[in-house]
Amino acid sequence: MYLTQGLHRSIQQKPDAIATSYGDRKRTFRELGERVARLASGLQSLGMKTGDRVAMLALNSDRYLEYQMAVPWGGGVLNPCNIRWSAAEIIYSLDDSASTILIIDDAFKPMIERIRAESKTIVHYIYAGEGETPAGMYGYEELVARSYPIEDAVRRGDDLAGVFYTGGTTGFPKGVMLSHTNLCSSGLALLADGFGSASSVYLHAAPMFHLADFGIGVAYWLAGATHVIIPKFDPEAILVAIERDGVSETLLVPTMIQMFLDHPLMQKECNLGSMKTIFYGASPMPEALINRAAQVLPNVEFVQAYGMTELAPLATLNVSCRHPSEAFRRAKQRAAGRAGFCVEVRIVDEAGKEVPRGTVGEVVARGPNVMQGYWGKPDQTVAAIRDGWMHTGDGGYMDEDGYVFIVDRIKDMIISGGENIYSAEVESALSTHPAVAASAVIGVPDADWGERVHAVVVKKPGVTVADQELIKHCKQLIAGYKCPRSVEFRDTLPLSGAGKILKVELRKPYWEGQKRNVS
Amino acid sequence: MYLTQGLHRSIQQKPDAIATSYGDRKRTFRELGERVARLASGLQSLGMKTGDRVAMLALNSDRYLEYQMAVPWGGGVLNPCNIRWSAAEIIYSLDDSASTILIIDDAFKPMIERIRAESKTIVHYIYAGEGETPAGMYGYEELVARSYPIEDAVRRGDDLAGVFYTGGTTGFPKGVMLSHTNLCSSGLALLADGFGSASSVYLHAAPMFHLADFGIGVAYWLAGATHVIIPKFDPEAILVAIERDGVSETLLVPTMIQMFLDHPLMQKECNLGSMKTIFYGASPMPEALINRAAQVLPNVEFVQAYGMTELAPLATLNVSCRHPSEAFRRAKQRAAGRAGFCVEVRIVDEAGKEVPRGTVGEVVARGPNVMQGYWGKPDQTVAAIRDGWMHTGDGGYMDEDGYVFIVDRIKDMIISGGENIYSAEVESALSTHPAVAASAVIGVPDADWGERVHAVVVKKPGVTVADQELIKHCKQLIAGYKCPRSVEFRDTLPLSGAGKILKVELRKPYWEGQKRNVS
Repeated sequence: MYLTQGLHRSIQQKPDAIATSYGDRKRTFRELGERVARLASGLQSLGMKTGDRVAMLALNSDRYLEYQMAVPWGGGVLNPCNIRWSAAEIIYSLDDSASTILIIDDAFKPMIERIRAESKTIVHYIYAGEGETPAGMYGYEELVARSYPIEDAVRRGDDLAGVFYTGGTTGFPKGVMLSHTNLCSSGLALLADGFGSASSVYLHAAPMFHLADFGIGVAYWLAGATHVIIPKFDPEAILVAIERDGVSETLLVPTMIQMFLDHPLMQKECNLGSMKTIFYGASPMPEALINRAAQVLPNVEFVQAYGMTELAPLATLNVSCRHPSEAFRRAKQRAAGRAGFCVEVRIVDEAGKEVPRGTVGEVVARGPNVMQGYWGKPDQTVAAIRDGWMHTGDGGYMDEDGYVFIVDRIKDMIISGGENIYSAEVESALSTHPAVAASAVIGVPDADWGERVHAVVVKKPGVTVADQELIKHCKQLIAGYKCPRSVEFRDTLPLSGAGKILKVELRKPYWEGQKRNVS
Repeated sequence: MYLTQGLHRSIQQKPDAIATSYGDRKRTFRELGERVARLASGLQSLGMKTGDRVAMLALNSDRYLEYQMAVPWGGGVLNPCNIRWSAAEIIYSLDDSASTILIIDDAFKPMIERIRAESKTIVHYIYAGEGETPAGMYGYEELVARSYPIEDAVRRGDDLAGVFYTGGTTGFPKGVMLSHTNLCSSGLALLADGFGSASSVYLHAAPMFHLADFGIGVAYWLAGATHVIIPKFDPEAILVAIERDGVSETLLVPTMIQMFLDHPLMQKECNLGSMKTIFYGASPMPEALINRAAQVLPNVEFVQAYGMTELAPLATLNVSCRHPSEAFRRAKQRAAGRAGFCVEVRIVDEAGKEVPRGTVGEVVARGPNVMQGYWGKPDQTVAAIRDGWMHTGDGGYMDEDGYVFIVDRIKDMIISGGENIYSAEVESALSTHPAVAASAVIGVPDADWGERVHAVVVKKPGVTVADQELIKHCKQLIAGYKCPRSVEFRDTLPLSGAGKILKVELRKPYWEGQKRNVS
């Protein structure tokens, strides 16, 4: 299969249906197909050859969807840039992948000069904004208009479809190489689980460079759904789009869902009757939020998806919301879900052997969705994919019904006196103290216990609290051996470009010259 | 992906749910997994090595499903025998595929001596019947009981899963080589179109050796459904099974549906409320039958599937029954359907170029479901798969909504004076005459028109009718140029093992020493 297959299918079966809706701009599948065939041709005229990488640095738009289709149509390989990264990180990913063409919109115009000065590989710039094309760039619309439509190159199967950079929390970003089969199998699995149909209207509210939205988008491309796009997450824009375009499905993260439910417009008589499914990821929904969501949107399914870029991206899907028993739904509510239709998921020990149900180990996955490898990093590829199983680095357990519960990143788990302690659980306890704004719990060396629990805490402004008080607070909530032995106060926590806490930075001074068992 | 993946998924997620129900015998997924792992081991103990073919010649049973799983589990390749074939044809397919083990049940016990005497490749015989194991054979249940369960060999992706012999209407049977990806992608596509879920109860009433049931079965394996099995088609057994096991989906052919609807038990208060979908194939349902079906089973979807062994097997699926407009449903009722989710379908001319909508050409298909080739027949493989497109040999057209309508086998189409004439249409007209029992319409050489329409007719017993009367009858129903120019009466028509009329035999005497344009 291949990325543009769903577009061809829609052109064959429903050419005059709406394919994309962005602001006041709507296009049918027939029009979209024509534009994609022209843009693909335009990219070739700028030198894109089979397998060449083409980058895009932009907010969401209908043009972003055209980019997703036109690059493979012309035989190229996608490289969607992380819009949250610094210029230095973006330039690293452009040059690492040796992208030669960069499509950029108004939001990132200010970054062009720096990229032009520093990138060693980008040759051509295409301006996909709404204003005048700046000097030294090609205009997106001119390129589409002046190019003669070409036939689809039909790159498919194991051909490389895209290089998706993932920040991680250590070292340089890694380019995840995903094939057409990788992406299509993940998309098809979502359809097989009952999501997406030709009558779906999917809203792209999460950033389109990210594989969460991209991956679900592949499913909706295959399904022949209508794509509604807003530039970026904005609760009001979401409400307006749902009502105007009859949106039925979207993807959000729990904090976005919270903001969306809390929006004043939500209180008014907003007609959200078209909504059927909200996918969410990154973390489980707190119970209070689930209850509130069920109250405000009783007919909407909230479906947790768990995965990673390396899995294109689907590993598990939690559709327990469909189960008739409320007790069952409640028991599975915090689960990441069960293995999707294309992928096998297991929990294994350090030797790769499956552990009994309920025992924490590393979550691993195998299937046609497992990436081809990290771009130019064969050693890291071999370390990540062992015997065909992608090692996620996430610690979790599986219950008797095959539901996976994530407890922590493996390397953030603390082993103290032989007991596993999950930093996430300790942080959750700390977060309930009124003085705590943020916290990071790490394992530091201990002569007696191997490791001991250490908390790094950021206080709320103008509040004072003693370390012993926080430790006492934790003891009321979690077992004694899990509670911090020591607390350190800081003004900020070190964050990665993607906003993840860099625990490796926090641990570094403590472990200088020593080796952790888990690293 | 791989054939046993759904079984593993079910063992992980619902080990105590019913996997198979046959007569009074029910087994859970946990039990089934244990038996499959033991049978796989037993087959290895009889010499089955990676890639070796293992044949089964049997009516439907739960053991047939175990065979489907155990052979790939042990690293082998399936070779399900066509139960309608003569001993000579079966022995040909066993030896052609070099199968070394044959599993056989009570129904085919009488054939053993002949196979033993004539097959050059079968070494071991396994008796899977319900009685005493005959001398010189291994007992199926003993093999399962005495073997130690082994781990799944996890043959997958492009690894060969099975060799499925297809009769065709010319020459020797051909072994269609299907990989794990071929079969799983076709199955996943069925799920993606909204069929099959973990709560489905699928009834195997059509013969399990045939890829129609096998292919749909793969989808229900992946879904984690319950499999209910009856030995062979029998309207009463179907009614009993639906009521007793809560069957929700099955596959039948239109003549079976007719017999099923006409059964006296149907008139009584049979509780068929669990039924959701009846797949059917081989031919469209006559309108009278559709109407009757809708009246008797108003809540059941009748879904036409079109495909072939070489497509593992799905090409198109007609789910127009879900369309809200009755006029639309009626217009699409005779269509083979639209391209399934994994496959691309086009109508092309002799040069492989797509023809305009509404124009008849050859139906071709491309996708991960296209077979790897014909076993040991590279020339026929190259002739069938051109530029990645499987040439079905079926003539048809596509309408504006992407629905494919099959008109005739390409080689049975008659070109007379530049006009295309579909033998099926002429035969349909002939069949409405009360004196006609069966007919075959062929093209024979004509000095003026290239070909002319010739009908071979079998009369009903004790009836007389003149050739001119039949021609006159046709003229009332179809255009003059389509009507037979000559009629020949015969006592029988030559049939293939699969019951298809061998038109090539009928044409042969007329074309001796001449070449047809289409052959």
